[in-house]
Amino acid sequence: MRAKELERYLHNHIPLSRAMQVSVQVLEDELVVLGAPLAPNINHRETVFGGSAAALATLSCWCLLHARLHGEGTSSRLVIQRNSMEFLRPIDGDFTARAALEQPERWAQFSRMLERKGKARIALSSTLQQGGETVGEFSGEFVALPAEE
Amino acid sequence: MRAKELERYLHNHIPLSRAMQVSVQVLEDELVVLGAPLAPNINHRETVFGGSAAALATLSCWCLLHARLHGEGTSSRLVIQRNSMEFLRPIDGDFTARAALEQPERWAQFSRMLERKGKARIALSSTLQQGGETVGEFSGEFVALPAEE
Repeated sequence: MRAKELERYLHNHIPLSRAMQVSVQVLEDELVVLGAPLAPNINHRETVFGGSAAALATLSCWCLLHARLHGEGTSSRLVIQRNSMEFLRPIDGDFTARAALEQPERWAQFSRMLERKGKARIALSSTLQQGGETVGEFSGEFVALPAEE
Repeated sequence: MRAKELERYLHNHIPLSRAMQVSVQVLEDELVVLGAPLAPNINHRETVFGGSAAALATLSCWCLLHARLHGEGTSSRLVIQRNSMEFLRPIDGDFTARAALEQPERWAQFSRMLERKGKARIALSSTLQQGGETVGEFSGEFVALPAEE
């Protein structure tokens, strides 16, 4: 899956990602970076609305999981179960969310469990940055379920 | 402050709230209810995107604090410091976020601290509902700071 293909998928299936003007900047097995400009995500203080920041972080984690499972030929339904977010400072410009697995060494176990039981959980984190500086930290727990509909 | 006035304020100053078609349904001292329809907040599974759910909950807490401080004649800058969210089940229709103070009895102390020190913290929670059923729980910590820019 290529970055532009994933970006199109997001814009076509998650209208909020289009409203936020989300771009897929990096799409690798171990790292996904999404970007968003300030203007569509601004609040009344002319900084990024906290809900936009959390939404970009959530999307970045979902993209990492989705792309990696897709790369392994697995088609799963990914559901977020809980998340937490720390806002470290106001964001007054374009920003990014860099998603990674919290414990990369647990991927093999997650993948095996998913294959055996059809269901597995995994934790991801996403770092919000502006101009290379960390401005927020997001942590989310996802569960992968059978894709049938 | 009236519900429609607050709704206009949100739509004019936080473009994401307009993209999400957020409505202010209840605006009281102890309770704020915001609503949003499924369509602009949908994901690729035809349920509400987790980022939209968290954004509505965040907004509902901000609205409660903002309106209550405004009602007391206080003009503060409100900053979210951290939040956590539990997603209890997928939301497949229009939904609401009902915000309340986590410890209403602490309001007087918060208000006094804000007046004395110009800075005070408070925790709010917001319950996401669909058709009267609870589908998610949000908890956020906010700090009120002097309003000067």
